[in-house]
Amino acid sequence: MATQLPASEYRGRIEICRQYLAETAADAAVWFDATAIEYVTGFAHIQTERPVALALTQDRIEITVPRLEVERVEPNERIDAVHHYFDYPGGRPVETAAEMLDTLGVEGVVADSDGAPGVMGYDGPALSEFVDVETQSWVDRMRWEKTDAEIDCIRESARWANLGHRYLADYTEVGAHPATVSQRASTDASRAMLDTLGDNYVERVRGSGPVHAGYISGEETALPHGHTPNERLSAGDVLVTGASANVDGYHSELERTMFVGEPDDEQVHYFELMKEAQDVAIDALGPGVEIAYVDEQVQDFFREQGIADLARHHVGHNIGLDGHEPPYIDRGWTDADRVTDEDAEMQPGQVYTIEPGVYTEDAGYRHSDTIAITEDGVEWLTFFPRDIEGNTIRA
Amino acid sequence: MATQLPASEYRGRIEICRQYLAETAADAAVWFDATAIEYVTGFAHIQTERPVALALTQDRIEITVPRLEVERVEPNERIDAVHHYFDYPGGRPVETAAEMLDTLGVEGVVADSDGAPGVMGYDGPALSEFVDVETQSWVDRMRWEKTDAEIDCIRESARWANLGHRYLADYTEVGAHPATVSQRASTDASRAMLDTLGDNYVERVRGSGPVHAGYISGEETALPHGHTPNERLSAGDVLVTGASANVDGYHSELERTMFVGEPDDEQVHYFELMKEAQDVAIDALGPGVEIAYVDEQVQDFFREQGIADLARHHVGHNIGLDGHEPPYIDRGWTDADRVTDEDAEMQPGQVYTIEPGVYTEDAGYRHSDTIAITEDGVEWLTFFPRDIEGNTIRA
Repeated sequence: MATQLPASEYRGRIEICRQYLAETAADAAVWFDATAIEYVTGFAHIQTERPVALALTQDRIEITVPRLEVERVEPNERIDAVHHYFDYPGGRPVETAAEMLDTLGVEGVVADSDGAPGVMGYDGPALSEFVDVETQSWVDRMRWEKTDAEIDCIRESARWANLGHRYLADYTEVGAHPATVSQRASTDASRAMLDTLGDNYVERVRGSGPVHAGYISGEETALPHGHTPNERLSAGDVLVTGASANVDGYHSELERTMFVGEPDDEQVHYFELMKEAQDVAIDALGPGVEIAYVDEQVQDFFREQGIADLARHHVGHNIGLDGHEPPYIDRGWTDADRVTDEDAEMQPGQVYTIEPGVYTEDAGYRHSDTIAITEDGVEWLTFFPRDIEGNTIRA
Repeated sequence: MATQLPASEYRGRIEICRQYLAETAADAAVWFDATAIEYVTGFAHIQTERPVALALTQDRIEITVPRLEVERVEPNERIDAVHHYFDYPGGRPVETAAEMLDTLGVEGVVADSDGAPGVMGYDGPALSEFVDVETQSWVDRMRWEKTDAEIDCIRESARWANLGHRYLADYTEVGAHPATVSQRASTDASRAMLDTLGDNYVERVRGSGPVHAGYISGEETALPHGHTPNERLSAGDVLVTGASANVDGYHSELERTMFVGEPDDEQVHYFELMKEAQDVAIDALGPGVEIAYVDEQVQDFFREQGIADLARHHVGHNIGLDGHEPPYIDRGWTDADRVTDEDAEMQPGQVYTIEPGVYTEDAGYRHSDTIAITEDGVEWLTFFPRDIEGNTIRA
């Protein structure tokens, strides 16, 4: 059981960033993106209108934060110095970061953006008003391939997603409210995870629990991003579920199409086509496989079955610190901007959601499983019955 | 009871945008920001790596969406035509938006950004590769002052936040798990809201309920953005709570400092100072008041009390469709970039959270109330006892 990234992971990431930095003419690398800062240092914060700036040189790592993050970042042993402004806008975040760079003797940087992103109304100067700035997206690209330790966290997430999903199935019955079933399943699975992991649980959420399990129901399932309706469950309803758990910032994705009571013939028909499409995609996965090819295979399958018009989206995405990450399993991936020949192919350590969907006017049908590419094949990380029997609630 | 924005709100917003557009040399206004698109049209979507682009001319409103949003946007009667690409990146979102602009005969636009934002790894061309682009932030500014209908939604949100908060207090006891108390309170308040509003409830959440209530506890409260610890409640614990509800996309913010069992003298001391600081801020609010002045008043109060070093952030922010919105009650607001003389003062319709905090090494003390500026004063939207008796759980 691995529920926390070891310190060696961060040392490795920092080492790689320093190698990239050495290949540039810049004195420091800078990041404003919260996830990138977490990836490099392990310091996690909520990205708001208050910018945070991380600077990495060949021998120092320093950070500029708003006053309210000082006590949280100071214990981080990878960060050599913490600079702060009081708050935004009075505190002048980018000016404070520029002073930090000045004390480091930095004249030119490679940054993930030229100033802080315009989140929640933030509006401030470009960093290039103070130092020379070239842009880089090293961490964005490093995040594509997960290490064994990262995959351990995602695997652990999948365990608790599975439990949340089991509770979803257990609590579902005719007359139940879909919001309440969702919230009860999240509550009970969170509590089981918290009690089981104990001190190994890494605190990551605020005013809630680490597991989220829930569903949309009825006609809302016809919309891939539908909402949970304010309508009790009826026999004949289709459910499209989702479950995940936060394990040291990492996520998995488990989704199932379920039925309240016995599905009718049309529902069985589309369920089986959807499951077959997922099989087609999963059979196509592997190291060295062209990413676009997997989406094309599903597209071909839908055309053969005469249901190409019932597709609404591509096959899937990567998952990790964010719920959606590149690369995307999309027929246009190979030709997308900036995708190199190597980046067009699946690599060991990439973790994909596989979730082709079929959508009629009345309902949607989609399973999603989280699957890692290995050196010689794939590893399923999520688990829950995929067949129609395992997803039918006796009403 | 108003639980949904009337159609007249959107007509008014569209009218204002067309007036702004008429003052430019451009043929159309364009937005890529999901909240701005929702504000103008009422079409709400989750902003992902799949861009959405809205175009508004003097006589048409058209939109470009990924295939998966087509069925959701088509019923929107304010949108005259829906264009779509299949998915990202193969579908070429900005190119599709450019074709939409071409069919509208548009050669120059005023857009909220020059291309779609880089969310979840999205990486695409600038819109200015296709048409002339000037930037505007009309909607960002329009959102500052809420109409009566918007405030009705926030007031309704506060009702359900209050109920969620009441459940938090009811379910809190020594030995309870803070995550479970939080999730139970959210579940039960959501269910009450769903059952009470019935068909008047606007579906807005996915796999959960509309009310969120929860807290952080113990030493985590010393961090303004602390996490919920995996540690049962003990007598003597400080809680910092938060509760809100989603009412047609609008939010309120209710936070309280609570005690598990009788607080000790130090806890009483800091609680009372915090409450007094909140009184100082609220007494200073009103139409025409300089926004920075309110933060300065609290800063002066903290200095007089000798606890300036226990402050970690400014007094508050605006709230509405987003949880944090400008203007910010910050001592530096007047001198911030792009803040005009008029924008430096509080205006009727602005809705502020008032939440000065005091943080010791052991615990944090912060109430937050949501308060609207009116023509001649203020209106409290959140309600829950603020005094120490009303926030002490008998252990």
